[in-house]
Amino acid sequence: MRTRAAVALAPGKPLEIMDVNLDGPKAGEVLVEIKATGICHTDEFTLSGADPEGLFPSILGHEGAGVVIEVGEGVTTLKPGDHVIPLYTPECRQCYSCLSGKTNLCTAIRNTQGQGLMPDGTTRFSMLDGTPIYHYMGCSTFANHTVLPEIALAKVRPDAPFEKICYIGCGVTTGIGSVINTAGVEIGSTAAVFGLGGIGLNVIQGLRMAGADMIIGVDLNDAKEEMARKFGMTHFVNPSKIEGSVVQEIQRLTQNERDHLGGVDYSFDATGNVKVMRDALECSHRGWGVSVIIGVAPAGAEISTRPFQLVTGRVWKGTAFGGAKGRTDVPKFVDWYMDGKIEIDPMITHTMPLEKINEAFDLMHKGESIRSVVIY
Amino acid sequence: MRTRAAVALAPGKPLEIMDVNLDGPKAGEVLVEIKATGICHTDEFTLSGADPEGLFPSILGHEGAGVVIEVGEGVTTLKPGDHVIPLYTPECRQCYSCLSGKTNLCTAIRNTQGQGLMPDGTTRFSMLDGTPIYHYMGCSTFANHTVLPEIALAKVRPDAPFEKICYIGCGVTTGIGSVINTAGVEIGSTAAVFGLGGIGLNVIQGLRMAGADMIIGVDLNDAKEEMARKFGMTHFVNPSKIEGSVVQEIQRLTQNERDHLGGVDYSFDATGNVKVMRDALECSHRGWGVSVIIGVAPAGAEISTRPFQLVTGRVWKGTAFGGAKGRTDVPKFVDWYMDGKIEIDPMITHTMPLEKINEAFDLMHKGESIRSVVIY
Repeated sequence: MRTRAAVALAPGKPLEIMDVNLDGPKAGEVLVEIKATGICHTDEFTLSGADPEGLFPSILGHEGAGVVIEVGEGVTTLKPGDHVIPLYTPECRQCYSCLSGKTNLCTAIRNTQGQGLMPDGTTRFSMLDGTPIYHYMGCSTFANHTVLPEIALAKVRPDAPFEKICYIGCGVTTGIGSVINTAGVEIGSTAAVFGLGGIGLNVIQGLRMAGADMIIGVDLNDAKEEMARKFGMTHFVNPSKIEGSVVQEIQRLTQNERDHLGGVDYSFDATGNVKVMRDALECSHRGWGVSVIIGVAPAGAEISTRPFQLVTGRVWKGTAFGGAKGRTDVPKFVDWYMDGKIEIDPMITHTMPLEKINEAFDLMHKGESIRSVVIY
Repeated sequence: MRTRAAVALAPGKPLEIMDVNLDGPKAGEVLVEIKATGICHTDEFTLSGADPEGLFPSILGHEGAGVVIEVGEGVTTLKPGDHVIPLYTPECRQCYSCLSGKTNLCTAIRNTQGQGLMPDGTTRFSMLDGTPIYHYMGCSTFANHTVLPEIALAKVRPDAPFEKICYIGCGVTTGIGSVINTAGVEIGSTAAVFGLGGIGLNVIQGLRMAGADMIIGVDLNDAKEEMARKFGMTHFVNPSKIEGSVVQEIQRLTQNERDHLGGVDYSFDATGNVKVMRDALECSHRGWGVSVIIGVAPAGAEISTRPFQLVTGRVWKGTAFGGAKGRTDVPKFVDWYMDGKIEIDPMITHTMPLEKINEAFDLMHKGESIRSVVIY
């Protein structure tokens, strides 16, 4: 079949809207009509050429929602008409990683996915001249139709709006999951969130759900404060407008009569900046502070600190897809949205048709959007 | 009173054996006759001048055992004749840190201890000419008598031999505690231990107690292999004698039919070398590996890695005094030694009188001792 897609032909160039060929689903695969897709910084990271593992030509996009059109041989858990969210972190429930019960990082199709291929080592997409087009993060939601392995699709309730729940395919789950799965924040905790973009706001609402007492947001842009407060931020720090370091400022905010040291119980980096990751670690509390890296750093960038920071009790962790097991947890997140337990609507600041997808990248560069969503 | 001590007069110089003045215990303090003390790398670190917080003149030593001679006003938990182990990490049971239940890093007397002083801001030791001599890590066990706060003494059973249990005051507890308190190793785990000195051997016996299946020891010195195997090491890697990196070698050793990635569930750095700390992190398993820093790094040295290592599920932690709460846990470790549950005797390779304490440092430099103990 043919479908309409925004194709990344080369690094640093705008996406090109065109018709592409799409082969039907092979064994264990599913053809999905994408109804909506968010545009995430990770797409931009790859499109810009900064991602050393970026492949071209490819169809980017990994934050979608849609409907099953056709299933390949042996597919048992999905049928045409099911509503689904594609998973860039699949959940096979059979590999050593899934069976460990200790990680969400399923390794069943890791190698081929990293090479932009389906599990059989080929692509389903091709240009009209036959040139193969790489898949991206196993999803390629910047195409109106795409093929995914069954294990990379979460079945969700049919009454949830695609143009909102697509955001659960990455940003919402990453942010909230980092709080509840990776950090395991307890009621009454103090926390700091670095970077108040689409991920940071979701970390903040995760902290509110988890019952944190103090939620300190950190961003260089004062314009981020208002929205972050709506999601539960209790204190705002703009590092360019304080005396001393942001670490000292956070220690000062959290000191009290009982605790003369200060420092937050949990901190989160949602910037991808390795210097900020260090600040996030070092502003966490001596003895028990846990700092979680969420952001994706530039190629080759390294985090560093004095080992004394860890020897005195801080813990440095990271999270991918918020530690969520996609097929198990994503349907639950959708329920939470439908029940009003989590908010998404105010974060979807822009919607557009596929033809205008490059405007979403412009909005992101200018810092004018939280999330843009393409509605097919 | 006067007592005999080995005094560190200046960085980089041998200790000098001399008589010094010792004031009696003030309120909340206890006078202890030290019966035996181990000599640890941390003493050497300070004596060498490498420790930026080192103070001179001072009486070093922090790994002792002795008998209470006299108690100051208000001391309620100890009486003359009690057998005790000094604690460089005290346990006041009342500060914000102790009450958190989340750390052993009591902060009750942290500031004065770091300045080489008793909690009232003065020293009990002085030269015969009246010059104050600094305390060290709140212990100063290189003196035949010393004064400590009540909260910095663990009361232990009277039938345990001082010249063995002194080692529980630092090395034994640090090594075993890092496994059972900090890492929380489960039965059936795989682990790697970098550095097979006095701490590393205790990590290994901690892993054996915890029921680890595979205990990989890493050291540049082949002579360390035999003893480490006696304590439970199952595999030995000498990084200078393998092809490829030590990370690859450990992944190779731990790969099997079910797990094609490899990597250990837990790793421990007992070297203090920041490059080794990185290897220890990176050889831990994708998805759930936990790496614990035990060693003390040179001043200013920093650890670093790509954040991707953490984002893909590794956790970087550290430990001080093995996460042990001294007054609560040290008596238990002494019981374990007396019950034959942990071994100490083979690690005490040399004993000597105080007059020959400088020989202990020479043995350490030459790598000929595991632990030297001064018996008063």
